[in-house]
Amino acid sequence: MEPTFTAKETEIKRLGEAKILSPLADLSEIGFDRRILYHPYLIQDKVEADISFEVAKHDKYIYFDPKKVTAAIVTCGGLCPGLNNVIRAIVLALHYGYGVKRVFGIKYGLQGFIPKYGHELIELNPRTVSDIHEQGGTMLGSSRGEQPIEEVVDALERQNMNLLFVIGGDGSLNAASEIEKEIYKRGLKIAVTGVPKTIDNDISNISHSFGFETAVEEATKSIQCAHSEAMSYPNGIGLVKLMGRESGFIAATAARAQRDVNFVLVPEVDFELEGPKGFFKALEDRLLERSHAVVVVAEGAGQKFFEDMESGIDPSGNPILKDIGRFLQRKINEYFKRREIDVTMKYIDPSYMIRSVPANTSDGLFCATLGQNAVHAAMAGKTSVVVSIWHGVYCHIPIALAIRNRKTINPRGTEWINVIESTGQPAFIND
Amino acid sequence: MEPTFTAKETEIKRLGEAKILSPLADLSEIGFDRRILYHPYLIQDKVEADISFEVAKHDKYIYFDPKKVTAAIVTCGGLCPGLNNVIRAIVLALHYGYGVKRVFGIKYGLQGFIPKYGHELIELNPRTVSDIHEQGGTMLGSSRGEQPIEEVVDALERQNMNLLFVIGGDGSLNAASEIEKEIYKRGLKIAVTGVPKTIDNDISNISHSFGFETAVEEATKSIQCAHSEAMSYPNGIGLVKLMGRESGFIAATAARAQRDVNFVLVPEVDFELEGPKGFFKALEDRLLERSHAVVVVAEGAGQKFFEDMESGIDPSGNPILKDIGRFLQRKINEYFKRREIDVTMKYIDPSYMIRSVPANTSDGLFCATLGQNAVHAAMAGKTSVVVSIWHGVYCHIPIALAIRNRKTINPRGTEWINVIESTGQPAFIND
Amino acid sequence: MEPTFTAKETEIKRLGEAKILSPLADLSEIGFDRRILYHPYLIQDKVEADISFEVAKHDKYIYFDPKKVTAAIVTCGGLCPGLNNVIRAIVLALHYGYGVKRVFGIKYGLQGFIPKYGHELIELNPRTVSDIHEQGGTMLGSSRGEQPIEEVVDALERQNMNLLFVIGGDGSLNAASEIEKEIYKRGLKIAVTGVPKTIDNDISNISHSFGFETAVEEATKSIQCAHSEAMSYPNGIGLVKLMGRESGFIAATAARAQRDVNFVLVPEVDFELEGPKGFFKALEDRLLERSHAVVVVAEGAGQKFFEDMESGIDPSGNPILKDIGRFLQRKINEYFKRREIDVTMKYIDPSYMIRSVPANTSDGLFCATLGQNAVHAAMAGKTSVVVSIWHGVYCHIPIALAIRNRKTINPRGTEWINVIESTGQPAFIND
Amino acid sequence: MEPTFTAKETEIKRLGEAKILSPLADLSEIGFDRRILYHPYLIQDKVEADISFEVAKHDKYIYFDPKKVTAAIVTCGGLCPGLNNVIRAIVLALHYGYGVKRVFGIKYGLQGFIPKYGHELIELNPRTVSDIHEQGGTMLGSSRGEQPIEEVVDALERQNMNLLFVIGGDGSLNAASEIEKEIYKRGLKIAVTGVPKTIDNDISNISHSFGFETAVEEATKSIQCAHSEAMSYPNGIGLVKLMGRESGFIAATAARAQRDVNFVLVPEVDFELEGPKGFFKALEDRLLERSHAVVVVAEGAGQKFFEDMESGIDPSGNPILKDIGRFLQRKINEYFKRREIDVTMKYIDPSYMIRSVPANTSDGLFCATLGQNAVHAAMAGKTSVVVSIWHGVYCHIPIALAIRNRKTINPRGTEWINVIESTGQPAFIND
Repeated sequence: MEPTFTAKETEIKRLGEAKILSPLADLSEIGFDRRILYHPYLIQDKVEADISFEVAKHDKYIYFDPKKVTAAIVTCGGLCPGLNNVIRAIVLALHYGYGVKRVFGIKYGLQGFIPKYGHELIELNPRTVSDIHEQGGTMLGSSRGEQPIEEVVDALERQNMNLLFVIGGDGSLNAASEIEKEIYKRGLKIAVTGVPKTIDNDISNISHSFGFETAVEEATKSIQCAHSEAMSYPNGIGLVKLMGRESGFIAATAARAQRDVNFVLVPEVDFELEGPKGFFKALEDRLLERSHAVVVVAEGAGQKFFEDMESGIDPSGNPILKDIGRFLQRKINEYFKRREIDVTMKYIDPSYMIRSVPANTSDGLFCATLGQNAVHAAMAGKTSVVVSIWHGVYCHIPIALAIRNRKTINPRGTEWINVIESTGQPAFIND
Repeated sequence: MEPTFTAKETEIKRLGEAKILSPLADLSEIGFDRRILYHPYLIQDKVEADISFEVAKHDKYIYFDPKKVTAAIVTCGGLCPGLNNVIRAIVLALHYGYGVKRVFGIKYGLQGFIPKYGHELIELNPRTVSDIHEQGGTMLGSSRGEQPIEEVVDALERQNMNLLFVIGGDGSLNAASEIEKEIYKRGLKIAVTGVPKTIDNDISNISHSFGFETAVEEATKSIQCAHSEAMSYPNGIGLVKLMGRESGFIAATAARAQRDVNFVLVPEVDFELEGPKGFFKALEDRLLERSHAVVVVAEGAGQKFFEDMESGIDPSGNPILKDIGRFLQRKINEYFKRREIDVTMKYIDPSYMIRSVPANTSDGLFCATLGQNAVHAAMAGKTSVVVSIWHGVYCHIPIALAIRNRKTINPRGTEWINVIESTGQPAFIND
Repeated sequence: MEPTFTAKETEIKRLGEAKILSPLADLSEIGFDRRILYHPYLIQDKVEADISFEVAKHDKYIYFDPKKVTAAIVTCGGLCPGLNNVIRAIVLALHYGYGVKRVFGIKYGLQGFIPKYGHELIELNPRTVSDIHEQGGTMLGSSRGEQPIEEVVDALERQNMNLLFVIGGDGSLNAASEIEKEIYKRGLKIAVTGVPKTIDNDISNISHSFGFETAVEEATKSIQCAHSEAMSYPNGIGLVKLMGRESGFIAATAARAQRDVNFVLVPEVDFELEGPKGFFKALEDRLLERSHAVVVVAEGAGQKFFEDMESGIDPSGNPILKDIGRFLQRKINEYFKRREIDVTMKYIDPSYMIRSVPANTSDGLFCATLGQNAVHAAMAGKTSVVVSIWHGVYCHIPIALAIRNRKTINPRGTEWINVIESTGQPAFIND
Repeated sequence: MEPTFTAKETEIKRLGEAKILSPLADLSEIGFDRRILYHPYLIQDKVEADISFEVAKHDKYIYFDPKKVTAAIVTCGGLCPGLNNVIRAIVLALHYGYGVKRVFGIKYGLQGFIPKYGHELIELNPRTVSDIHEQGGTMLGSSRGEQPIEEVVDALERQNMNLLFVIGGDGSLNAASEIEKEIYKRGLKIAVTGVPKTIDNDISNISHSFGFETAVEEATKSIQCAHSEAMSYPNGIGLVKLMGRESGFIAATAARAQRDVNFVLVPEVDFELEGPKGFFKALEDRLLERSHAVVVVAEGAGQKFFEDMESGIDPSGNPILKDIGRFLQRKINEYFKRREIDVTMKYIDPSYMIRSVPANTSDGLFCATLGQNAVHAAMAGKTSVVVSIWHGVYCHIPIALAIRNRKTINPRGTEWINVIESTGQPAFIND
């Protein structure tokens, strides 16, 4: 996969020179600065070394004086396992790592900056965050939708904030980028740091995002249930709709993890329903042969079937998807009625039961390290930056690279081939 | 609560005199026969001792010769945690307890008896059932709907069955009762034994039914998710629909277990939506005060709102319920739009994720003992009988008592009072 | 089983006449007072109605004025799942049910009353207890060992306590009984209410105790691990030591729940190790036949093997048990070395991983109801009383009946017969 | 970290030229061969590109004819979560991916090759492995200890095996390497493929090993229990011993994941017990300040304290470690007795409850991919090779690189610094 940006664009913006000795300086030998290669491969004995990302670490010198710093944390958009873990990690790293004592939570996403909503600031310290990672959701609350950038920066000025941590998806990271521009315009010294949040794992230039692993684990439970239901009736069909607006990673990964899935439908791979090679025929064949079937569909799959229907936009600016799950449920039933085959269909939509669980152990560790590295970036004076992980290495990349475009499944790549190998499904395309 | 039957009606039907020494006879002292009182209370120094149930146990003498016995097991209706545990317990008790080696599973419920469906018998032995309790669903498969009783008994005769174990709800137990009548008419010696299955816990004269505890445990997880979602947005509403066609036990019990629930709506307690004391007003007040709310609704609640809509009957003969969950989701949103209050509603319908999980440890033990006692009844020659538990004591009662009427929540009883105490909800009835 | 007490002894002591209208009075029709029969059976057409227990309920009139009441809660002895749930339920019932606002936690068991330890009182209200049931252990802390009764009552007087809730085992309930006697002697009006705590489920006149079900669930996980280990090696032996000082209920119940157990050793059933019918020979036979074996031993089993060893008493006054687990581990290895058979033994002692987990859903509900009924008793002015459950009915019994003697497994009863049926183990007694 | 080998040593040995068109050839575009850099970094604008590993993938041409291949799978050494998943993945990839139908399991590790033990071969196919990943342990059984290499190769010849998959730790991988040498000496065409197994995550040149993440997840549960116990008593100490003979990764990672740990002791970091800066003094200080403490110790830590004691070697050739857990338990108690401070110590050793659980979802996916890539290597004719993952990329490396030396925690590296930051513990070294 080729990078969609130049080496120049990987450069991190800084508020100024870091001159203050870091309280963490003693903790370890500070090695040379390193960058992780975008393509860490040797191909035909050559390495492409022109594109790389700055490796995250704590620096010897920092930009902000910990004793004078005030930090704000805000969570935006839909829920994702691990939000509380990231909040907690940021607070602990600020407090214990750098000695920053004034940390505030912004309530209900960007709304919390806007006076008319009247939301109070939440004081954050090790005691108030001690157990939050055991709960799903976000202790700060969240909201969808845009807010006027000027008013947000007004609030940051009024509250004397120096650090702003935005935990959110591409809409919110875009807002963070706009906020940084306004800050720059006003000549303020406020570092804006993003922690990319996407349960769909679809943010670009980031190997994988927090909460995804937990989401897959929860999704497999739904698939297990669908499988039990399907097995328990003659011509039983278990249909599970999973998250994935534009990228089917959860559906594809969960299907591989719980190898009971026979068909996976994702946004990236076109398919037809009717016709000799269509999905319905394949499903019928499966039932004839094995009497049961499990189908997993990502919410963004098959949107072409809704083209004629009226559409809309949700408050975050995402197009409202027609419900492919309910649509398939109805259409499959109609198909088999037409074919005079009795089937028993059980439809499971676990979305809100996946988004709102606490992070598992592994995501918990991941979030903890993301939070730490977000704090390292901010204290060093880096701004308009997000924490990424690339080839197993935590790094800092400009926000612009994270919101450049979406990461999607390559229908000719290993990920999808593994799905095909696992399900045995053909391409549902008539000639 | 007064019994709806006479002492005469608690008598168990028997196929004949039990004369064969039981292989279990040595295992313990066989005490006196005992009956558990229907009302085990002293009220104003008096005991009502006229109604009681036969305590289940293994008898010294049995009716069937274990070496000659062939047994059939069938599971009917919707899934419920523990089905596989009951199957397993019956097989193990027949095999190890009595030395019965010929045990068969009937595939896909009563369909499995009807030649036109062409389902094969499944051989059951300790090896084939060894791990089934770790899976949800039923290894035998199930189906809904009636089958011709004569054909079922034809199959039993043809297959030389002596014992028939029916694991099913009130529809299936009614069929079992009809099957037994036909068996009696033909003069056959086949014992018909029921294990009552109802995830709603609504079968009469049975303190609690298998799978219910697991269902409540799973339901609390959905409520936790709804709570996390509700807490994470301004005016967040988490709406959870749980099972409970005519009895709201799961909703009521889960609400008590997970004390984050603010409103519980069940079929047994009438409520109004609009008006000064209606549910919507109470929900609005809650949001004003606390900014979030969790609502749990049993599927059979509020059916009066659908009275004008056209209706139907599902293949099991149950009336198709209008979907109160989706209905409330729409109506609540409409209400707050009218009131010009922004709310964020998350709707969770976990039904098939509750029905299809494996039994928890405690239900596993319960199912094991139910299965054992079903076998004791059958081997002793009792027929048209189900295994019940009454005041903690396993007992045998005639099928007729189990399907007499439904057990429901008493709106003036302890169960519902505890719900009110836990949620703080008022009665939603305008004067 | 015959009661070891007279009808007279079931009478509950009261501080005085209840004259204050209960805030709960409106909530439900207050029916007749009922008592649950000790023997709720009809045996040879007769009922023994002379012994019965007072059914727990909220009364129309209470003894204490909620506005003036101060309550103390203390947890004593070893951990047990559900301690925090009981604390929480008491606080919520006092606060929401009766309007009692002054509730205090005593820190570290009875130590918390004794000035020399310097422990502070902990203020308890709905906010401070809101999430405690999600943690194992006890938020109040606990301790073992006796404290001078006079000093405890001095503290109660000094702090103007009116209600004392003691959550503890038989040692602590005995202390509660002594405290009540001293209170009576001084003419104070302080109600002493016990919630019996025993992970071993061995308190008399109480059908089952909180935390037991969770303990069994956790114990089955250890057994599963022992089974996996045993299966994975030639002549693999998985040995699990479970709690049970004088009663083997956890071992017996867990063995039934997880039917992979081949041998269960409990304090109530004598056994020999050596000899033709001894345990070692049976274990050898099992290995010869199946190549692996799972053994579960209760900590109090086989204490006779330690008779010659020196002994001691722990701070709670319990005799220090010689470690039967480690002993068997060594002895089994020695036996097979002698027999020149290679075995692979894996020893698992999960005790502290069982005691310290949070209560499962079902225990959570149980604890909630126990706490409520403890509060009903106290507010009604009952004293020297504990909350019991008998044949599924919550009742109040004098502390004296709870500490009368221990409940143990009857080696000729259903419980043990089910174990034998499940494991297939013989009696390990040489003639 | 510098590589301990030359570029030459990363070359993979092959049985011969791959000429047979792979059944997987169509599935995807076969790109250029790629190698993953050992150091994928840009340091001072330079890349070290001399050392790299062969990226794993399915090739267009394979060496073995799938129709004629017979494969053997063996699992060796101690249990580790995921063994069954790897077995299953190898069987499924051989069967569905390449059409290899003859696959056999070797029973009880290398013992299964040696005639005198008399273990039978186990037939493996998709049906026999369908559910094994839901169980811990290994369905094939395992054993420790060496077996004569010649006899193993005799067996491979006798059974006409073409592929040998060895799932095991460094001892077993060393045996695999010796087996391959003997195969080569005899001129046989048998591919030997290793899947490195180490719950300690200590195999060199492999980023992380299967089962490790599950182990950490289970370990955190023990720590939670230890924390609940410690919190519940005055001066409560929870002491947890975790796996880690020579590398403390589990202890260090679990401590970071469950941030309730105050002290972590690992083999890589020297420490003293007594003295002003010793561990005991720090523990005492902690108790004075906070009244409770949680200590995690890796089994290989502090072995210097046993230097005078007699020692031994286990059947796998590993030195028998003196039990640091029990040792600390005793020594800590002695210390506080000497200091006249009452403490309550709870000791938890969860080792066999960690090793024997089923893999979690994430490890399950990891094992699935490891198994697939092991099959790709073998079918391509690569031999004396193991499947590794390096910077997120699956690759093939010579067995020799995997057993070169152990991976350990660098006391000056990020891993350990994160532990120190999380626990706040100092170095326990007196000057």
